[in-house]
Amino acid sequence: MPRNKQILLDNRPQAEARAGNFKLVTTETPALADGQVLVRHHFLSLDPYMRGRMNESRSYAAPQPLGQVMQGGTAGEVVESRSPKYQPGDKVVGMGGWQEYSVVDAEQPGALRKVDTTQVPLSHYLGAVGMPGVTAWFGLVKIIEPKAGDTLVVSAASGAVGSAFGALAKARGCRVIGIAGGADKCRYVTEQLGFDACLDYKQHKDAVSLSKALKEAAPAGVDGYFENVGGMVMDAVMLRMNAFSRIALCGMIAGYDGQPLPMAYPQLILVNRMKIQGFIVSEHMEVWPEALKELGTLVGTGKLRPRESLAQGIESAPEAFLGLLKGRNFGKQLVKLV
Amino acid sequence: MPRNKQILLDNRPQAEARAGNFKLVTTETPALADGQVLVRHHFLSLDPYMRGRMNESRSYAAPQPLGQVMQGGTAGEVVESRSPKYQPGDKVVGMGGWQEYSVVDAEQPGALRKVDTTQVPLSHYLGAVGMPGVTAWFGLVKIIEPKAGDTLVVSAASGAVGSAFGALAKARGCRVIGIAGGADKCRYVTEQLGFDACLDYKQHKDAVSLSKALKEAAPAGVDGYFENVGGMVMDAVMLRMNAFSRIALCGMIAGYDGQPLPMAYPQLILVNRMKIQGFIVSEHMEVWPEALKELGTLVGTGKLRPRESLAQGIESAPEAFLGLLKGRNFGKQLVKLV
Repeated sequence: MPRNKQILLDNRPQAEARAGNFKLVTTETPALADGQVLVRHHFLSLDPYMRGRMNESRSYAAPQPLGQVMQGGTAGEVVESRSPKYQPGDKVVGMGGWQEYSVVDAEQPGALRKVDTTQVPLSHYLGAVGMPGVTAWFGLVKIIEPKAGDTLVVSAASGAVGSAFGALAKARGCRVIGIAGGADKCRYVTEQLGFDACLDYKQHKDAVSLSKALKEAAPAGVDGYFENVGGMVMDAVMLRMNAFSRIALCGMIAGYDGQPLPMAYPQLILVNRMKIQGFIVSEHMEVWPEALKELGTLVGTGKLRPRESLAQGIESAPEAFLGLLKGRNFGKQLVKLV
Repeated sequence: MPRNKQILLDNRPQAEARAGNFKLVTTETPALADGQVLVRHHFLSLDPYMRGRMNESRSYAAPQPLGQVMQGGTAGEVVESRSPKYQPGDKVVGMGGWQEYSVVDAEQPGALRKVDTTQVPLSHYLGAVGMPGVTAWFGLVKIIEPKAGDTLVVSAASGAVGSAFGALAKARGCRVIGIAGGADKCRYVTEQLGFDACLDYKQHKDAVSLSKALKEAAPAGVDGYFENVGGMVMDAVMLRMNAFSRIALCGMIAGYDGQPLPMAYPQLILVNRMKIQGFIVSEHMEVWPEALKELGTLVGTGKLRPRESLAQGIESAPEAFLGLLKGRNFGKQLVKLV
């Protein structure tokens, strides 16, 4: 049985998450029972939602249990199978957690998904052609409901969700403006991802200043906004939203360490008859097939070229995750495990 | 021709609106042209939305022009007609403004609406069976979309919109909790309007305190919220909202004088996958016939007994309006003009 390095949640953050909240252990993978498969993880996905689960308080998901392997999406290869559904060598995506191997009950619906890596590299099934991509698709298609010619904005534009949002929006004839942190990210967003413009929020000291820059990039105002960040960035975009505009609220990473994060101008929701809606993509499994098909085609045809930040080895997962919370990643944050 | 006392907007408020923003003048009503009618106003409606129009800044409606008669809903009687559509004695509702008489072009669609006062007193066509009632209906039916058994909350519960909301919600099998300012209003809300509970926000120093009281009144949480107020009251209710709950945002009177009015916990929109939607009832004229029919039946059958605050004489309109903005009215605020 292979040895399996795992990262556990050892204790909960008091405010800011830190490396000491995690603990590295090594175990042996157990022998397989009938119907089980052993998956060797090639990639672990790190995502902002994991920060919420580290808290004990009420959130949309049950808290991550203490002393257990951190939950998370994984892409890998079946190395041993006692299920007729899988053969060694099959490439699979699942929720294997922060560890090198997982034992999966292949009969459990949705536990594993076989993927085809001839057109789409395996790692992208954790990003553009996975949960982050479907997240962008749902917010755009089901909440923002754009018309051709609409002006749309997405924050954290260079990330896994933001980059997919841009490609999906361009495919629908929209003008797309990104917001990202730093000149390098903004250059990538316009030059590689094909956004019409990108604003560097780090160049602005407050929402009013960022809002003025957005006015130049979006002279006709903003019809739809996909929010990953919250706080000052959200306030700035709200100041430019048009009548009957829509906000898909996917994340508020700026407040994940427990900082107060008020919305400065809620009266604009009324003045502009806006709709703001929060959502969690795992509650809308019915859209996944349609969304994954479109996203796979965008990646396969080169219209969406996702960028990845790779950390090497499971030991590096905690630091890579803490960096993600501070925006230090550039593109989809993964841990490479082989 | 009768003499006509009018209230003009003389200058715009700097922050808080005050009596000096208005000016009383007396004119003669002009002779009628073909197709026109002369209406004597019996009641003038005072409504919070008027405060927004006193500002020059961008809002959902064009600003009230300076030096002109304040706009507003009126109910009255045709006293002279050069239109085949109206006879002297007809009871009519329109947008006659803050004055004793108005000359109306009867051919203009929607300018006047003939009403039947055998079942419903004339004044109620400015309240429960008028714009405020339809406002409650739209937010409840089209945004909150309640199911029987849902727990709903409305702020400014003793007012024209809140009282109609309560009756409409009870008719759909919901539990309804009001929020109002003062013990008298709360007693009226539960004893006369039939709400299941009412909280006096003046008994609470902050949102957390009000939220705790709401937890006792709504142990299963809140599924839908109709917001007229904003600020601390809104924060308190948001802390008790359930997953997939809906907020119909109709007014934020707490910020109408230009005070900052941040929303303290916008992350709850995400955590609870909420929908918040702002609306203006005059943009949804298609629902008025259905809504007015239900509201007329509720009033005619005694299931909705709206309360009115009557100021006497057009001269009293400015002070009554300023009182409304401070919550000094008790029920629908009207000015009686005959």
